[in-house]
Amino acid sequence: MAKVFMDSESFLLETQTAVNLYKAAKEEPVYDYHCHLNPSEIAQNRQMPNLADAWLSGDHYKWRMMRAMGIDEKYITGGAPDYEKYLSWARTVESLIGNPLYHWTHLELQRYFDITQPLTEKSAPEIWEKANALLQTPQLSVKGIFEKMNIHAVGTTDDPVDTLEHHRAIADGSAPIGKIDTKIIPSFRPDKALDINAFDFAKYIESLSAASGINIKTPDDVIAALEIRLDYFISLGCSLSDHGLEYVPFYETSVKNVEKSFRKAMTGKSVSIVEADAYKTMMLVSLACLYAKRGIVMQLHFACIRNINTKMLFNTGINTGFDAVNDRITAGSLAALLDLMELECNDTGLPKTILYSLNPKDYYPIATIMGGFQGGRSEQASCAGKIQLGSAWWFCDHKDGMEEQMRVLASLGMLSSFVGMLTDSRSFLSYPRHEYFRRIMCNLIGGWAENGEYPADMQKLEKIVRDISFGNAKKYFE
Amino acid sequence: MAKVFMDSESFLLETQTAVNLYKAAKEEPVYDYHCHLNPSEIAQNRQMPNLADAWLSGDHYKWRMMRAMGIDEKYITGGAPDYEKYLSWARTVESLIGNPLYHWTHLELQRYFDITQPLTEKSAPEIWEKANALLQTPQLSVKGIFEKMNIHAVGTTDDPVDTLEHHRAIADGSAPIGKIDTKIIPSFRPDKALDINAFDFAKYIESLSAASGINIKTPDDVIAALEIRLDYFISLGCSLSDHGLEYVPFYETSVKNVEKSFRKAMTGKSVSIVEADAYKTMMLVSLACLYAKRGIVMQLHFACIRNINTKMLFNTGINTGFDAVNDRITAGSLAALLDLMELECNDTGLPKTILYSLNPKDYYPIATIMGGFQGGRSEQASCAGKIQLGSAWWFCDHKDGMEEQMRVLASLGMLSSFVGMLTDSRSFLSYPRHEYFRRIMCNLIGGWAENGEYPADMQKLEKIVRDISFGNAKKYFE
Amino acid sequence: MAKVFMDSESFLLETQTAVNLYKAAKEEPVYDYHCHLNPSEIAQNRQMPNLADAWLSGDHYKWRMMRAMGIDEKYITGGAPDYEKYLSWARTVESLIGNPLYHWTHLELQRYFDITQPLTEKSAPEIWEKANALLQTPQLSVKGIFEKMNIHAVGTTDDPVDTLEHHRAIADGSAPIGKIDTKIIPSFRPDKALDINAFDFAKYIESLSAASGINIKTPDDVIAALEIRLDYFISLGCSLSDHGLEYVPFYETSVKNVEKSFRKAMTGKSVSIVEADAYKTMMLVSLACLYAKRGIVMQLHFACIRNINTKMLFNTGINTGFDAVNDRITAGSLAALLDLMELECNDTGLPKTILYSLNPKDYYPIATIMGGFQGGRSEQASCAGKIQLGSAWWFCDHKDGMEEQMRVLASLGMLSSFVGMLTDSRSFLSYPRHEYFRRIMCNLIGGWAENGEYPADMQKLEKIVRDISFGNAKKYFE
Repeated sequence: MAKVFMDSESFLLETQTAVNLYKAAKEEPVYDYHCHLNPSEIAQNRQMPNLADAWLSGDHYKWRMMRAMGIDEKYITGGAPDYEKYLSWARTVESLIGNPLYHWTHLELQRYFDITQPLTEKSAPEIWEKANALLQTPQLSVKGIFEKMNIHAVGTTDDPVDTLEHHRAIADGSAPIGKIDTKIIPSFRPDKALDINAFDFAKYIESLSAASGINIKTPDDVIAALEIRLDYFISLGCSLSDHGLEYVPFYETSVKNVEKSFRKAMTGKSVSIVEADAYKTMMLVSLACLYAKRGIVMQLHFACIRNINTKMLFNTGINTGFDAVNDRITAGSLAALLDLMELECNDTGLPKTILYSLNPKDYYPIATIMGGFQGGRSEQASCAGKIQLGSAWWFCDHKDGMEEQMRVLASLGMLSSFVGMLTDSRSFLSYPRHEYFRRIMCNLIGGWAENGEYPADMQKLEKIVRDISFGNAKKYFE
Repeated sequence: MAKVFMDSESFLLETQTAVNLYKAAKEEPVYDYHCHLNPSEIAQNRQMPNLADAWLSGDHYKWRMMRAMGIDEKYITGGAPDYEKYLSWARTVESLIGNPLYHWTHLELQRYFDITQPLTEKSAPEIWEKANALLQTPQLSVKGIFEKMNIHAVGTTDDPVDTLEHHRAIADGSAPIGKIDTKIIPSFRPDKALDINAFDFAKYIESLSAASGINIKTPDDVIAALEIRLDYFISLGCSLSDHGLEYVPFYETSVKNVEKSFRKAMTGKSVSIVEADAYKTMMLVSLACLYAKRGIVMQLHFACIRNINTKMLFNTGINTGFDAVNDRITAGSLAALLDLMELECNDTGLPKTILYSLNPKDYYPIATIMGGFQGGRSEQASCAGKIQLGSAWWFCDHKDGMEEQMRVLASLGMLSSFVGMLTDSRSFLSYPRHEYFRRIMCNLIGGWAENGEYPADMQKLEKIVRDISFGNAKKYFE
Repeated sequence: MAKVFMDSESFLLETQTAVNLYKAAKEEPVYDYHCHLNPSEIAQNRQMPNLADAWLSGDHYKWRMMRAMGIDEKYITGGAPDYEKYLSWARTVESLIGNPLYHWTHLELQRYFDITQPLTEKSAPEIWEKANALLQTPQLSVKGIFEKMNIHAVGTTDDPVDTLEHHRAIADGSAPIGKIDTKIIPSFRPDKALDINAFDFAKYIESLSAASGINIKTPDDVIAALEIRLDYFISLGCSLSDHGLEYVPFYETSVKNVEKSFRKAMTGKSVSIVEADAYKTMMLVSLACLYAKRGIVMQLHFACIRNINTKMLFNTGINTGFDAVNDRITAGSLAALLDLMELECNDTGLPKTILYSLNPKDYYPIATIMGGFQGGRSEQASCAGKIQLGSAWWFCDHKDGMEEQMRVLASLGMLSSFVGMLTDSRSFLSYPRHEYFRRIMCNLIGGWAENGEYPADMQKLEKIVRDISFGNAKKYFE
């Protein structure tokens, strides 16, 4: 007999042990260490006007599916009224069998609005009314959501030149949101300082000069300026950095050559791919040492190919659903880059490092390469899972993708030390993605226990699922 | 308790919902939009003399397995008597546990000959007699098979220089097969016009000159000639083109350079790989615009490596089982090629496009890249699933392979708009491969419903499986 | 209800058919055709002093997990007392949910020591006492283990310059171990003769000159020397060669060019990657012909990246857990290399060949490329599965990895002719890895039969699982 649709007790939980484990996992707070929430909206304690705004104002995951549905861009990023956009989305949702957005959407309806019926064209008007009414209540302000969803920490994504004024206001309680129990942590993402072949690189470096007070003339000056900004970030609670890369760059050359490339870029001349890789290699290694010395976690994200549709780049801009999964070769350059970091960071070795790829084909190389850099010289040596296989995210954060990431990690490394899920989200409603992850994780682990592959010792199993849900992240990032 | 061997009610259907859904799916006609059936044999309403001819006269899938079994080539493509070849195949079949050929063979025995016992060396003689007798009946003529198997359309694969005389004869009812309900649709496959580094390229271009009446001197002339032939194909019902590629080529250069390469090739001089890629890029983009303007679907097949055994190429020729799965990098060139098409095809944007890879490692890049080109400017914009992740075919059309393709498509895109299966076959008996696909598809979707991952709304679920079985293809291609 | 933890009747066996099939499979002897056991320790009939020695003296799989646990190197490869190392391992084991080492460890405890309780920090002291006592008994000498575990053959891994004195002593019964029923077979692994860009290449070639009596001046001389050593190996029972490669090299050039590169390397000059690939290509092709003529199996292992952590290479040396999975492109060079072998080995065609990749992404290319080289001209043509997709080993020999390898092989080739598992181990206790493999294999095949995908004919199914467990290997290697 078919199970009830997305039943809160048993959804994605195929064994009784899994059901029991999830009861423990769901009690844990959320450590959402990487997302793209807007700090200003947090500070303002934003109240979303309606479901269209909540779901469709910035979520390019949903926009992509609406385009796959053949919906006119007017109803996606264009000027159509909110309600029509919402109806277009409702029509799209019905077609999303097997897609994580189907599940996320309904988890959000259940958890925030107590709506258990499926969203369809037919049910859409009623759901619109009911949900919009609730969105006006304090329970669904940003603060209300953080409390309701038991959010321990939120890691925003910030540029080194950012003033972090909102983080400061939130931290000292002067922001409209007032005192909150959720930590709002800035993350240090210096992509623009590395992106030497971007058309606006020189301009960015100027703004970095201004923000840091360093008159930047050389790559070393860039590092010096970033160090100043990093320490400022740390003063406001930053414990993570983040690097987005299309592929893992690695090219070693002399400092002199890198300086030459840098001068070229700063005077608006074009820089070759090899020169850019050499510059990025030098920057990443230098930054790794800064991070390690300060106990800052280094996140490296790769295997992304961006802005693939030029026409739409001009129409809708970046981060609007036109990025995709890249498939460059990874092992050689990743191993060499980590090796150089380990060698160059004399006193510390590598910082704690999370390696993410958007392409699951990279999991075997990553999970085995990271095994060659676990442990280390500093006190970090005592940390289990110092180098992490990053969570299945973005295009991978569906049921099969998360299960695959955990299975590979378990088979080739140590799942029990995994720091777990992040939302990577631009939406305040997206916290049920943690629930989604925890269900999948409890189902996997519970299945092993039921199947006699691990002792059915509930105390030990509960500790594992609690740790992956929250405990490991807390320990790792704090 | 073990299930009955390949029981027609429950084979591959693990839940009751799946069983019920398959009852709906099996009622749908077959839209076999890509195959390699011989139009002349269709026109003649061919009657296969015996099982050896039916199974082994052209099917290199089977030949490969016979070679893996260590069987002498004499009994494969050589001169041994049909009955001995058949016995060699029967002996091989017994060893094919877990292989799709094991299932296809028995589905064919069940559906065409009402034989439910397994094919073994022992049962082979009896099956030979029984099946051969039935093969002589009108029910198993080509026409009989089309009727019995409810074949709505068959897309053959044809060269632009083909006269399509058989298609014409079939269409106007003058062929021996007489009037049939199945549409026999030519597909436009101009591989030889693109294969600039083939030894017989110049000769092929001459035949294209002759067929089109264009005196071909430049790449632009090639396009002009292909346009004439394409319109001729369309006049006989063509709605699909097809391109077979070892990998996705992408190289942009000046028209002048491409013209120079073309002249070299036409005078028998060798052309570099980069030159060939540049020529192919230009041709593919030009053709894409022709297709888009006419509403013709563009199929791009890649990740194949051909004729890998030189010795056997001389012995048995091409398409005899010596091709394999390629593993080149895909994302960068695929994204760039589609982007250029979208930009260059001013009035239309990309045509409807199906992207196939023989290598499942390409599914993540393809499924996410295609998401960046959904929707569009023309009336095609309103079509759900304008860009398709091609069906798991050739080396991928086994149970695990088809399920993987559908799971990735569901997770990263929109499974419900999938145009479904094709046989890619050279055999008139191969239609049960559609049954095989539908069972796997119904099992996947039924499993989700039973599992509470989608509402157990049978009306909606039946619509989805009927659409993927037939309705989406009909809408997409017609 | 959860199954008993690693119950010997049902562990990993999900259906009754699987349980029944495993009863047959477990009766078969073990043909461990590739491992890294020390021939001298076999000859001496070594008795392991304690569990730390048995488990941790050479097993870099375990060392890697201890590093992932954050354990100090002192307790891994360092000078800490055995008991402390053992406790560190016990602590690590508890955290290895989902990892094959968790299962191997407990299979070893069950099979050798009759200990069914889980190894934990708490149970560690008691297990230490009990196991160490048994390790002193003749039943757990090398000879005792071979008998207890029904080991038919052990393929060690040996350098062409090795004297094979221990193999000779074991064969003629003069070694301390005395007469044993297990065949100890040397394998011919000439990696150092191919590794032209290694810093000690010239020195190695000198030792090969000495061992063979050939004054090596050219690549042809290397082949001549290796031929002499190969024949010596064969005189002591060798039936397998083995090549470890970071990726599949392929570059064709003139013999003169290869000779020039060789002279450079012999005089200590550096050799480019292309030159090295050309040399390796020539050597591999020449060796393939030698193997084919003698009926020796050729093993090609690739997709490994070695010694990725330079700092640890200086601390702990090679083969201490700092290798990883590589991800180079494979199809083109593999197809070309096999094609050239097939062409060049005039009288024989390719030898029997096993193709292993550490990276599962290579399975599709390998399994389809090998299909293009099955059968052949010599009497080997009659052998089913002449070219094999190598077993999932090293980083792949976990439950998911083995199942994936078998599923791909079944879907794209002929699983029933698979030669099955090897341990690749450095530990005398590792034979339960064969049990692990057989359980997974019986579960897969039993599942198909239960599911109606293959007839539930126990006699035929038992033959298949017995063949994959042992019979195929015996036939293939003897």
